[in-house]
Amino acid sequence: MRKDINISEVAKKAGVSIATVSRVFNNSGPVKESTRKAIQKIIEETGYLPNVLARELAEKRTNLVGMIVHNLSGEGMSRAIEGVNRVLDSNSYSLLMTCSNGSLESERKHFELLRLKRVDGIIFATRSFKEEHKDMIEKLPVPVVVMLQNTENAGVPFVAFANTAFAKGATQKLIELGHREVAFLGGPEDSVNANERKRGFIEALEDAGIAVEEDFICHGNYHIESGYEQMKTILKRKKIFTAVVAVNDGMAIGALNCLQDHDVKVPEEVSVLGLDDTVLAKASRLKLSGVHYSYNDLGFEAAQMLLKQMQSEVYDFEKKVLPYEIHLRESVQARTHYKN
Amino acid sequence: MRKDINISEVAKKAGVSIATVSRVFNNSGPVKESTRKAIQKIIEETGYLPNVLARELAEKRTNLVGMIVHNLSGEGMSRAIEGVNRVLDSNSYSLLMTCSNGSLESERKHFELLRLKRVDGIIFATRSFKEEHKDMIEKLPVPVVVMLQNTENAGVPFVAFANTAFAKGATQKLIELGHREVAFLGGPEDSVNANERKRGFIEALEDAGIAVEEDFICHGNYHIESGYEQMKTILKRKKIFTAVVAVNDGMAIGALNCLQDHDVKVPEEVSVLGLDDTVLAKASRLKLSGVHYSYNDLGFEAAQMLLKQMQSEVYDFEKKVLPYEIHLRESVQARTHYKN
Repeated sequence: MRKDINISEVAKKAGVSIATVSRVFNNSGPVKESTRKAIQKIIEETGYLPNVLARELAEKRTNLVGMIVHNLSGEGMSRAIEGVNRVLDSNSYSLLMTCSNGSLESERKHFELLRLKRVDGIIFATRSFKEEHKDMIEKLPVPVVVMLQNTENAGVPFVAFANTAFAKGATQKLIELGHREVAFLGGPEDSVNANERKRGFIEALEDAGIAVEEDFICHGNYHIESGYEQMKTILKRKKIFTAVVAVNDGMAIGALNCLQDHDVKVPEEVSVLGLDDTVLAKASRLKLSGVHYSYNDLGFEAAQMLLKQMQSEVYDFEKKVLPYEIHLRESVQARTHYKN
Repeated sequence: MRKDINISEVAKKAGVSIATVSRVFNNSGPVKESTRKAIQKIIEETGYLPNVLARELAEKRTNLVGMIVHNLSGEGMSRAIEGVNRVLDSNSYSLLMTCSNGSLESERKHFELLRLKRVDGIIFATRSFKEEHKDMIEKLPVPVVVMLQNTENAGVPFVAFANTAFAKGATQKLIELGHREVAFLGGPEDSVNANERKRGFIEALEDAGIAVEEDFICHGNYHIESGYEQMKTILKRKKIFTAVVAVNDGMAIGALNCLQDHDVKVPEEVSVLGLDDTVLAKASRLKLSGVHYSYNDLGFEAAQMLLKQMQSEVYDFEKKVLPYEIHLRESVQARTHYKN
């Protein structure tokens, strides 16, 4: 097994004192230029690792930002990480990322891990923010910014999307187009984001005086296959509906495929809208309507907020909810005479 | 700013000696049960961080695996990370991930960062493995496994896909179906993986005695828009072709969309195949033909290989090339009478 070389071995190789090697490494005190070069060459060749950990401890900062994510599937989180790096790169910070499996136990472990690695702050993404998360965060000696969830009630700084607002807004667009029997393909029932979107959908119906029918609401796991299955379940109920709102593009594409396989014409008979705007929408058989919000900006704003918190004396509560745009495209049209 | 509490403050709060706190934390030596509980409560409440770094140094291992990736876009890398975690979770290792921007300078920085964080081994993904990478790796005191590239020439352990073989095999399937004028939408010219796929395409033509026409070969950046543009470029050349092989699904979907917009029927006039099998293929207007290989298994195998290296005395060269399957679906058919 290869071994780390220590400072005395470097000194021995160079034929100088340990103090001299130390001066070269820390760039402190006078050293003859030829000696400096010789030592640097040995450091380079041997890959000598000085006691940086001790230095880090003394300096009380590592210029490292930690990030815990519960899920890397889907393009959103990757884009958010790109956004985080956009900020860190230009501020001489590096990112240490870990993936939890979404359980409290795993998340606790990853907070501890990042703390041991002496990160200066943490960006935290979880499926559903709980009281226990608040406790974990309060015990940390560094600031934390939550990404993708509204943690205002817990007083924890966050950057999130306006799930309820855009789900409501998009559903209202369909109602304005004459749709009254609208199905909803939701996400996992324990996902805060999915539930916020469902709430927005329901609020839009209620505000328009339309009864919310449980038969028109299903829950899936965000994937195309799941959208397909849930759409099939609703079709089997044989109730008339003229529009579908899906919690994300995966579910919306599944719905499109299912409707096509059952000879239901989109948008002539049923309009389809996904509360999302991913690369899947571009690949779909017809231009999918949806809501655009930027994951890259999400990560960017989270990192900005975290750096600010890291530089301040007190960790004030702060929040940022990102803007969105609703796009109606080919997959949506005004309600027609259709009876199924 | 919140502050770390030190051992003497914990001792003071508990009204005991520093040695007692240390015994509780390290679970060594006798401590009265009530005292132990009191101290544990204070440790819990204050979030006291003992000098774990010193302990880690003494123990010479951290149970951490590092991972450097150059790119998180696309679903492949996320799945590979899931595969890595599948191994690490069941072996009590944690993953520290960093994203380089793909430049040598950035990669060097991230190797150094992971070394400073005392990881026990590193999984490394890069766009194009170079001599400089070999130097960086040889200087590290821990083993490295390269993911997604064949580094046999450099003698660095790797886990990769059989790019050339499956690109050749898939192209041969098209040739067997009678296609002789086949276009190729390639990836970035500096990507080793993309070039291996292009090589496989060319080898298949050459083996069949078909001249390779430069007019039928384009390069893009893997995205749908790029596939669209490159397909358009080839269409403009007004040469007859009856099939297209795209380096990935993004480019293949772009080609499909472009052909549709130009009233070229797929598969009746032109067959389309992507050297990939992602979620995009499921979302496309017709079932896209492609090659299946598992990114999850890629990560799994890389982590397995790394753990093995970490446990052995010598870092032997080792390699693993993952299996693949070619799937012909709706988007491909036998060549017909078509003349464009």
